Amino acid sequence: MSLEPDSFAWTDARETAWSAGREALAAGTAGWTASSAPLEQCLGLVLAEPITAQLPVPHYASSAMDGWVLAGTEPWQLKPPGSALAASEAAPVVTGGLIPEGTVAVLRSEYGVVEQADGQQQLRRAPGVPAEEPPAGRHIRPAGEEAAAGDTVVPAGTRLTPAHVAVAAVCGYDSLPVYRAPAVGLLLTGDEVVTGGLPAPGQVRDTFGPTLPAIVAALGGQPSPPHRLPDDFEATREAIEGSKASVIVTTGGTGHSRADHLRSALQAAGARILVPSIRMRPGHPALLAQLPGGRLVIGLPGNPLAAMMALLTLGAPLLAGLTGRAMPELGGVAAGSRFAPLEGRHRLVPYALDGHGAVPAEHVGSAMMRGLAAASGVVVIPPQGARPGELVATLPLPW
Amino acid sequence: MSLEPDSFAWTDARETAWSAGREALAAGTAGWTASSAPLEQCLGLVLAEPITAQLPVPHYASSAMDGWVLAGTEPWQLKPPGSALAASEAAPVVTGGLIPEGTVAVLRSEYGVVEQADGQQQLRRAPGVPAEEPPAGRHIRPAGEEAAAGDTVVPAGTRLTPAHVAVAAVCGYDSLPVYRAPAVGLLLTGDEVVTGGLPAPGQVRDTFGPTLPAIVAALGGQPSPPHRLPDDFEATREAIEGSKASVIVTTGGTGHSRADHLRSALQAAGARILVPSIRMRPGHPALLAQLPGGRLVIGLPGNPLAAMMALLTLGAPLLAGLTGRAMPELGGVAAGSRFAPLEGRHRLVPYALDGHGAVPAEHVGSAMMRGLAAASGVVVIPPQGARPGELVATLPLPW
Repeated sequence: MSLEPDSFAWTDARETAWSAGREALAAGTAGWTASSAPLEQCLGLVLAEPITAQLPVPHYASSAMDGWVLAGTEPWQLKPPGSALAASEAAPVVTGGLIPEGTVAVLRSEYGVVEQADGQQQLRRAPGVPAEEPPAGRHIRPAGEEAAAGDTVVPAGTRLTPAHVAVAAVCGYDSLPVYRAPAVGLLLTGDEVVTGGLPAPGQVRDTFGPTLPAIVAALGGQPSPPHRLPDDFEATREAIEGSKASVIVTTGGTGHSRADHLRSALQAAGARILVPSIRMRPGHPALLAQLPGGRLVIGLPGNPLAAMMALLTLGAPLLAGLTGRAMPELGGVAAGSRFAPLEGRHRLVPYALDGHGAVPAEHVGSAMMRGLAAASGVVVIPPQGARPGELVATLPLPW
Repeated sequence: MSLEPDSFAWTDARETAWSAGREALAAGTAGWTASSAPLEQCLGLVLAEPITAQLPVPHYASSAMDGWVLAGTEPWQLKPPGSALAASEAAPVVTGGLIPEGTVAVLRSEYGVVEQADGQQQLRRAPGVPAEEPPAGRHIRPAGEEAAAGDTVVPAGTRLTPAHVAVAAVCGYDSLPVYRAPAVGLLLTGDEVVTGGLPAPGQVRDTFGPTLPAIVAALGGQPSPPHRLPDDFEATREAIEGSKASVIVTTGGTGHSRADHLRSALQAAGARILVPSIRMRPGHPALLAQLPGGRLVIGLPGNPLAAMMALLTLGAPLLAGLTGRAMPELGGVAAGSRFAPLEGRHRLVPYALDGHGAVPAEHVGSAMMRGLAAASGVVVIPPQGARPGELVATLPLPW
């Protein structure tokens, strides 16, 4: 587990820094989490090794009909279900039932009648059923029809749907080799934050507690319930050092004022700062650090829109790498109006679509979520801005 | 809560029966589950009433910079943070801090210096800062900038993303009126089913336990852990009558043989059969019933592919209606080869794409999941079949 500070050029002003940084993050964490997980925990995860049939599927020949298994010519002496058959013998069978040794074919229930003869039960064809019925093999599902033992049925790298997991079960697996969802700890700061009711002057409502767990889960992480911290150096350091999560996401405290404790707490915990800030707006104060032992810390700004843009910039590729998923690909849309340049920084702007293309949405200040909630998506505007009609990148949203 | 048997024409042979049945199901359950849920439980749910701002957002004017609030002309007498200001007074403020009464503008920290004068602290402009700095209103974020009190910020009918839930929090909500995910009980039958290891001859591995909860959740339900039943009339009746779920999904036992107990158990429980079977393949023995009091029972066949096709046919529209979502829309694809007709029945066929369009996938027997796992999707072939090049409907998969 190692991510190198030199991988990241996000404090550069180069145009490609933002995209290149995402790619470096995804590559830097690729494959850290491969291990075995029980089937019911594998849905949505990426398979680390192929699934091969551990036995022929189905592993025994079975009847496709309710009726009788039989061998030889009419009349057939009726044996108990499951008996091995000799010539002119038959036995009852239900759909899906095992085909006993010696069976030639299955006679469906509507085609036979059972009679008493010499104190024994005999099976005969029902009146009108032709003498060639059943031909050899009729209504027998052979073993190995779905897969031969050893067949690769799902290739490595597949993101597992319920259909894949069902196939793994019938192929004899109880667990699968997958890239597991990493545990993600959530530490929320801000003495001014309240979690319910109408806030008093100077207070703001928490937007992270009800939303970050679901966003982290959508990006591939396994979030713990959010933990709230006072704006205090010692409490911040203890929470970071004490967390057992592979990835810690914090909100707030990323600035450099006396009320901001994240950077000093990281330093005290012996963390290396991999990304001290990102040349983007909003979200510039975001940071990425690595604790001794390899655990990662994503520091998000306290403003909700800034935090979301930073999480999608830093967290989405990191978690894609950790979970073996392809990195969320950028889309594209035509700019419907001019987007102003911003020296040295990418701008991430929630947009609406008008007749010409993407135009900035309203209500997109870094503390505002209203614009993002109503937006068609988020455009990534490079430092030189964009002209009307120019194709600009769009950021994939995890919902 | 009422669904009428007459709404369903799925035992008709008419071509439109399959699609019309889906629409009737979604319409029949629409809006049953509207109620209030805490914010963190609302993600992915559909809003039943609009979200309106309960207060101006932000609800107080705040500083956009670290520095000083001030009024009147230089020099400014320095007051404690938060003091109401008279002419030629100033007070320290941090970003996001409350703007006190009397404030005219904010002077950013780099633009001011504090000196001692007559035993008091005085604020002055730093050398080189022009005398017109700060103009009135500078660096003040006004109240109501994101929304005025009473503004509709999210319309009814919206499926809630984390951005909407964040907006609801800042608008003063602790809970929201939504169509809640209905509780779905899962009852799995089959004495021949084993849940782990390599199955013995006559045994089959369970494919439902590890997959149905996730599929039901993706369709909008809130699944309970699967409950396993013996192939026994009394146990089946007790489990159905005893379930507290709004929707019960069963697997297996939908046939009419002596080993199948679902239909007799439903009759004993006083259920009305709304859909006794569906003219489709695979999945024909599936049923829909309603218990006294309105609870619904979806009976799926025991074969995995048949069960999945029946769940997507019956369960997807029912859960869409219950959760206020738009019904999953059918897609379309060109047939890449001839699909044979099947008198009176729709066929649901996992397909692969070749150069010409959709062709049937391999391994698509009703007991097989391998074909579906590898398929590009599922085509819905009408009773008259489809010619090469003809546009055929595709069934949306929930993963």
